[in-house]
Amino acid sequence: MPENLLKGKVGIITGALDENSIAWKTALKAKEQGARFVLTNAPIAMRMGAIKELAEECNTIVIPADATALEDIEKLYSEAKEYLGGDFDFLLHSIGMSPNIRKGRSYGDLNYDWAMKSYDVSAISFHKMMQVAEKMDVMKEWGSIIGLSYIAAQKVFPFYTDMADAKALLESIARGYGYRFGKLKKVRVNTISQSPTKTTAGTGIGGFDSFFNFAESLSPLGNASADSCADYIVTMFSDLTRMVTMQNLFHDGGYSFTGISEDIMEKFQDL
Amino acid sequence: MPENLLKGKVGIITGALDENSIAWKTALKAKEQGARFVLTNAPIAMRMGAIKELAEECNTIVIPADATALEDIEKLYSEAKEYLGGDFDFLLHSIGMSPNIRKGRSYGDLNYDWAMKSYDVSAISFHKMMQVAEKMDVMKEWGSIIGLSYIAAQKVFPFYTDMADAKALLESIARGYGYRFGKLKKVRVNTISQSPTKTTAGTGIGGFDSFFNFAESLSPLGNASADSCADYIVTMFSDLTRMVTMQNLFHDGGYSFTGISEDIMEKFQDL
Amino acid sequence: MPENLLKGKVGIITGALDENSIAWKTALKAKEQGARFVLTNAPIAMRMGAIKELAEECNTIVIPADATALEDIEKLYSEAKEYLGGDFDFLLHSIGMSPNIRKGRSYGDLNYDWAMKSYDVSAISFHKMMQVAEKMDVMKEWGSIIGLSYIAAQKVFPFYTDMADAKALLESIARGYGYRFGKLKKVRVNTISQSPTKTTAGTGIGGFDSFFNFAESLSPLGNASADSCADYIVTMFSDLTRMVTMQNLFHDGGYSFTGISEDIMEKFQDL
Amino acid sequence: MPENLLKGKVGIITGALDENSIAWKTALKAKEQGARFVLTNAPIAMRMGAIKELAEECNTIVIPADATALEDIEKLYSEAKEYLGGDFDFLLHSIGMSPNIRKGRSYGDLNYDWAMKSYDVSAISFHKMMQVAEKMDVMKEWGSIIGLSYIAAQKVFPFYTDMADAKALLESIARGYGYRFGKLKKVRVNTISQSPTKTTAGTGIGGFDSFFNFAESLSPLGNASADSCADYIVTMFSDLTRMVTMQNLFHDGGYSFTGISEDIMEKFQDL
Repeated sequence: MPENLLKGKVGIITGALDENSIAWKTALKAKEQGARFVLTNAPIAMRMGAIKELAEECNTIVIPADATALEDIEKLYSEAKEYLGGDFDFLLHSIGMSPNIRKGRSYGDLNYDWAMKSYDVSAISFHKMMQVAEKMDVMKEWGSIIGLSYIAAQKVFPFYTDMADAKALLESIARGYGYRFGKLKKVRVNTISQSPTKTTAGTGIGGFDSFFNFAESLSPLGNASADSCADYIVTMFSDLTRMVTMQNLFHDGGYSFTGISEDIMEKFQDL
Repeated sequence: MPENLLKGKVGIITGALDENSIAWKTALKAKEQGARFVLTNAPIAMRMGAIKELAEECNTIVIPADATALEDIEKLYSEAKEYLGGDFDFLLHSIGMSPNIRKGRSYGDLNYDWAMKSYDVSAISFHKMMQVAEKMDVMKEWGSIIGLSYIAAQKVFPFYTDMADAKALLESIARGYGYRFGKLKKVRVNTISQSPTKTTAGTGIGGFDSFFNFAESLSPLGNASADSCADYIVTMFSDLTRMVTMQNLFHDGGYSFTGISEDIMEKFQDL
Repeated sequence: MPENLLKGKVGIITGALDENSIAWKTALKAKEQGARFVLTNAPIAMRMGAIKELAEECNTIVIPADATALEDIEKLYSEAKEYLGGDFDFLLHSIGMSPNIRKGRSYGDLNYDWAMKSYDVSAISFHKMMQVAEKMDVMKEWGSIIGLSYIAAQKVFPFYTDMADAKALLESIARGYGYRFGKLKKVRVNTISQSPTKTTAGTGIGGFDSFFNFAESLSPLGNASADSCADYIVTMFSDLTRMVTMQNLFHDGGYSFTGISEDIMEKFQDL
Repeated sequence: MPENLLKGKVGIITGALDENSIAWKTALKAKEQGARFVLTNAPIAMRMGAIKELAEECNTIVIPADATALEDIEKLYSEAKEYLGGDFDFLLHSIGMSPNIRKGRSYGDLNYDWAMKSYDVSAISFHKMMQVAEKMDVMKEWGSIIGLSYIAAQKVFPFYTDMADAKALLESIARGYGYRFGKLKKVRVNTISQSPTKTTAGTGIGGFDSFFNFAESLSPLGNASADSCADYIVTMFSDLTRMVTMQNLFHDGGYSFTGISEDIMEKFQDL
């Protein structure tokens, strides 16, 4: 087992909803590798019981904050800095939500106020977290910032509607701020484009099972689990990946570069 | 000279500000190739004298409409349909604006209300135009819809700030709606990623000359002009490109796939 | 109907095997649009009866040439130039062959001499045609060169074995020579990445029907036909696309940017 | 410092020419993290004194082998397996050579026998190493195979001539075999696209200094060193990245997604 990959590092982990969350698993692995961090979630999205349990397990605290509200982010950073005793080495952005998906609105029937909400929660909050971090100067040199994305940013998955556009925005923000933060403080910014994952958020999307199965059939290694994603995030927070920045990194068992698999070909033989 | 490429086709052209605009030149070429169309622009962005002149030259009318307002788009389509005598074969979206760029806010100092405005005007308006078109069922089968983009959607150009993110959003919307409209009515949707162009909008961006010159030095064919872009748009509106959809098409003299040119290497020899 | 798109233009069309070929259909459409050209094919691949018929229909001649042999290419250009009365405006490279596929060797059991043959016939011949054209200076300024490719250059289609690598090589050569020829003579070079097509070459690949059906189910506009590909090639040979170069242009009904379709989701619901 | 990232893992490292080599540094770091491995290089490319020194430092042996010769690869695997006492967890392919570059032939004047040699040494050898590994069944489940690439596979760097095409071929092979090896044995295959690096091989390319400087000016984090590349390779060999496959991973300080930097804009202000 690798040891001490994050020894001495401190940071912030958003989005640990319950034990299926990628963020939840990242917290456990980061602790295992020697990191200290605070947990945060939007008050509205928080399952207080669950996240407090995780906080105890990680020997840390929870600071509720709405990542779309600048003053909440400021408060989060101030309190986290005080609790952790210094600036941050890493941030995990694992936040996303679409009212249009929740209410079952198709891509040809978007409510535009809700679409704005999707973009704000799922993408612009990433910019806000970085802009506030820059202004408060709370990132350490050679720090690492990760956002979680999905391949719908590149290709169309009809059921994903405005979240696809939000993810495209998120990845663009990672590039834009990655350039800026790299120049300013050697901080790197990347997104990880993860397989469909059986998290509580994921399975809420209509047709999730179908595309989970399809992706499983297509990917030579199968779909990547939340657990393996957490492993990968740990490497991206470590000092061994310092020169990787502004990238969208596919963590998907090979899905992204597979055109067709033998399994799928069989299904289309007799049409 | 090619002839009759758009014979019998009707459509809508947005964004013809003045004679430097890509949309302006597209209007002239579309007419030359046999198309009929209406011109439109946001009341606030319209130079009434100029666009009326163009309308006369093209033997058509101007219908003012704010592409971020659903009711304006509805009115535009109703009036255009009545004037043109039928549904549309093509739409050109050539609309973009960033208050953050105008006011000189850097990417680390975005005003988020203004960013929302950038996205709405420059990208979401494209979705709105298509959603309204679908709901009113005003596109003909095998119609063609084009949005104008810029390579900042893929790579960082620091001065382009939130417009880069807006362009990423625009291209994502082209893919998402391209899938949908393809299925529904065989309508194709693409973006054209054009060289930096000396339009009135383009030259308003700080540092425009530097990156125009850089792109000119990098591109083996030099920067593509507004005029040649209009030519290309005409081919994309014609029936000869019916199976091209959901693409972002670089029209840039080779810029997008050139890593370095001999001209630029000379500049970096003695560092 | 568009007219005179290629009026006064002369060129060379390779690979017209029979009436299902993309090259065959391109010849017919190019003639229709006013172009003059010679046809060529490898002696070994030629169905003499068929191609002579096409030549008659197009009022031209056939010059046999093996595109992997420099002296054959030289002879082709000399004779074509004499017959056509001048230098060339366009070249179509539509040549590909894999002994490994023909003999049913899988990707884990390649015969490397045959793989070299696949690369030479399917990709390096493209470089050879351009290098000889440059050395003999037979391309006119603003000429257009097209090679035909397939999305296996980007993503894995297991049955396509070493042809996938050959296509990746072909597209790289298009970029590399596109830069060079652009600088030298304003000549543009692009590849068109076409849907699986029911040509004689295509249907010879094992599992062709499966992936044809799969692509048909995925693409919002369905698979692009050889006929529509010929239309698209005509636009790329015309003066309306002069600033498009070094690109790989997907002509595939939207396949390349579709992650999943409703049709396919249904098939994976109950797994 | 991370510890035990590769504890218990065994593998093969090619291409350690001298202490500037990425492979050389990878060997040192892999040992530090608990791996055991053999070193190999082509007899013709080997600096016997140097590599033996490295072998001593790593407490291992050198097995000369020409990676273009199947029987050499077989012998390498047999002897390595015997020496290491079991199958392999990782392979590093760090091999490349272009006679055309060495002899100063431009991209418009390629010697095609030499080009074939470039492809064979720099790309096809990667396929050969994997095909032989599959046939001899010497890879352990969840093993990791890495090839070193360069962004010339995607974009044109004129001086890089046929090596650009070789890198495109290499990356295609990584995808093709990645799919296959994933299905067969859960083995992942990726390429790392590294910054221009001041290795002995790199600095032999004409104009190296110019494009090193240009890349340094463009990349927000500057060019990635051989040392940091070795760190990254170690993460890719570890169990923390098991679901990353068929990817080309940019390790370049942000170069690949930066369109222009402020430094470069200044240089182009007054043209």
